[in-house]
Amino acid sequence: MRWPRGFAGAGVACGIKGDGRLDLGLIVAEEGVSWAGAFTANGAAASCVRHCRALLGRATRAVVVNSGNANACTGQAGSRAVTVVTEEVAREIGCLPQEVLVASTGPIGVPLPTKLLVGALPRAMGSLSGEVGPFAASILTTDTGTKTAKADLGGASITGVAKGAGMLAPNMATMLAFIVTDARIPTRPLQTIFTDAVTRTFNRVVVDGCESTNDSAFLLSSCRGERVDSDRWTRGLHDVCSDLAQQMAHDGEGATKSFRVGVAGAKDEASAVALGRAVASSALWRAAVNGADPDWGRIVAALGSVDRFLDLTALTISIGDVQLLRKGQPTGLQNDAERIMQARDFDVTCEVGAGSASARVLSADMSCDYVRINAHGST
Amino acid sequence: MRWPRGFAGAGVACGIKGDGRLDLGLIVAEEGVSWAGAFTANGAAASCVRHCRALLGRATRAVVVNSGNANACTGQAGSRAVTVVTEEVAREIGCLPQEVLVASTGPIGVPLPTKLLVGALPRAMGSLSGEVGPFAASILTTDTGTKTAKADLGGASITGVAKGAGMLAPNMATMLAFIVTDARIPTRPLQTIFTDAVTRTFNRVVVDGCESTNDSAFLLSSCRGERVDSDRWTRGLHDVCSDLAQQMAHDGEGATKSFRVGVAGAKDEASAVALGRAVASSALWRAAVNGADPDWGRIVAALGSVDRFLDLTALTISIGDVQLLRKGQPTGLQNDAERIMQARDFDVTCEVGAGSASARVLSADMSCDYVRINAHGST
Repeated sequence: MRWPRGFAGAGVACGIKGDGRLDLGLIVAEEGVSWAGAFTANGAAASCVRHCRALLGRATRAVVVNSGNANACTGQAGSRAVTVVTEEVAREIGCLPQEVLVASTGPIGVPLPTKLLVGALPRAMGSLSGEVGPFAASILTTDTGTKTAKADLGGASITGVAKGAGMLAPNMATMLAFIVTDARIPTRPLQTIFTDAVTRTFNRVVVDGCESTNDSAFLLSSCRGERVDSDRWTRGLHDVCSDLAQQMAHDGEGATKSFRVGVAGAKDEASAVALGRAVASSALWRAAVNGADPDWGRIVAALGSVDRFLDLTALTISIGDVQLLRKGQPTGLQNDAERIMQARDFDVTCEVGAGSASARVLSADMSCDYVRINAHGST
Repeated sequence: MRWPRGFAGAGVACGIKGDGRLDLGLIVAEEGVSWAGAFTANGAAASCVRHCRALLGRATRAVVVNSGNANACTGQAGSRAVTVVTEEVAREIGCLPQEVLVASTGPIGVPLPTKLLVGALPRAMGSLSGEVGPFAASILTTDTGTKTAKADLGGASITGVAKGAGMLAPNMATMLAFIVTDARIPTRPLQTIFTDAVTRTFNRVVVDGCESTNDSAFLLSSCRGERVDSDRWTRGLHDVCSDLAQQMAHDGEGATKSFRVGVAGAKDEASAVALGRAVASSALWRAAVNGADPDWGRIVAALGSVDRFLDLTALTISIGDVQLLRKGQPTGLQNDAERIMQARDFDVTCEVGAGSASARVLSADMSCDYVRINAHGST
């Protein structure tokens, strides 16, 4: 996969990870480009997140990413590290430090070894190319593989690269996402359109319900390609984000399967999302998914925990096309549902009979491996 | 342990569990007594919860409990089952059906086999005694042992019996609790005092963040013993509830250790509780506890997920008496903290520097066994 016109990328090992894996990524634009961003709402947001938020609305030339250190909860030293890194990247490229965006992921509370990062910058600059691969590999942490997606818009394209496997919860799923496009589109509503796409895709992945300090999604737009109809472009953006979100759910830490929770008949979209998230993040239901156990009572309990006025007589719950509860009456079709739950991927549908709004939330099962991966995460 | 004056209890096997374990419990008062109750806020509350809520304010003669079936999400049949059971208990005792309280726990969505329950009632009545043991054993599900607590008030006492191991979240922790007293106390504020005790004890246990459909706590008061000073009685009640809550955290499904999250310096108590619950229910932190990994960044991320304006420069985090973060600066004392985390039980303290309110929330680690227990819960 290649970057759209006007962009190049690189991924190298700068030594922060310590085991030789790629951990420094760079996206460089040939000239200043418009960008939009979406960041974690966590009150303990990392220095890089605070840095980028302050640059919203300006043009940008580059994004530098390290995947060996979150640079979160590192106090004044964390902000200084961001300053050092942006100044060095700016010097290499020949732009202003305020034109350099930064993203980080990795352990929290460990001082960022800026020397390692800065020392590897010339090598990263020297390996810039049109190939997405090295950058996609350089941003991974506990991910089991790279996550990329593409929308071909005819004479222009949208390329998306992401990482995210654990600490996945809305606002946003712990993730970094870089969406790059060369389509000629009006720049004015870039942020609005991106916020909407993020809300309906990345913010609807829930795995362990833990919100990260470093979630960042970027949309960079060079306008170097052909003009694309606004609707087509918006659809393409949504598809790319949605594809990446699905890949994150599939790759949830320790996950053996993923599932989508569709909520229909909710009184409004916010309520549909809240109900979907409650089921998607229920530890009990996710453990049941791990064992392919169609224990729909746990779905009902999760729905009831966010809707105090849940109408049980209106509630229908299905796994795939098998109804387990039909308007409040158990159907006894557990065996059929169990077969569907053996698959790598399936749908849970909850019709709550309170209105006409709907939403879909993605998640993955909870396995022993999730516990194993996270029992010794920092050591 | 014995029931206070004016009460007797029993526990028998009625066959709902299918493996011969005790599953039918009964508490009978010699005459009508005052009672208070606290129930799940879940919108999918079971029939027995709805039944008891409607009886708040009346006198009661008995509580009947089955631990083999939740009788939740069982539609009209669920309400009919409650009617049948209360009528039969009332006939055995010689009281009104409205004087019989009901609690249930077990699988959701399975019709309650009322015949088994009713058939065993005469046997339960015949084995009523002053001993708490059989009743305490009859209410267990995945619990590894009985949970009882006692406060001796000199001439009167408070006896508490509870169950709860998984699906533990506030409002309330999935639990049943039966607090029985013979102290002569003013009956008027019974509900107020009990609600306060439940709020500060049972509602501050979080294990998997899953809220049950069946949580019920009862306080029954016979006034058959001596008069007890109101403050002393309130303290005794709080101690009994607190002791039972602690036992539930220790016995969390698959738990290998428990921990207390103390939050200090919060702007108000609600905020302190919310911050404490966020840490106590964080899957990432609970997995780290399992591995004795002092990964304090996960605590910060959990705090930041509920406090968007968390002041990192004011934040101090300790494990036992070892500070890991001191006013936003990492101390590097991970090794000392790790030693403390090897214990069966330890304290996490978060000083947030926003005010003077504090709260304490109890929880347990997340282990592979939690997943194993719940991957095939219904099968």
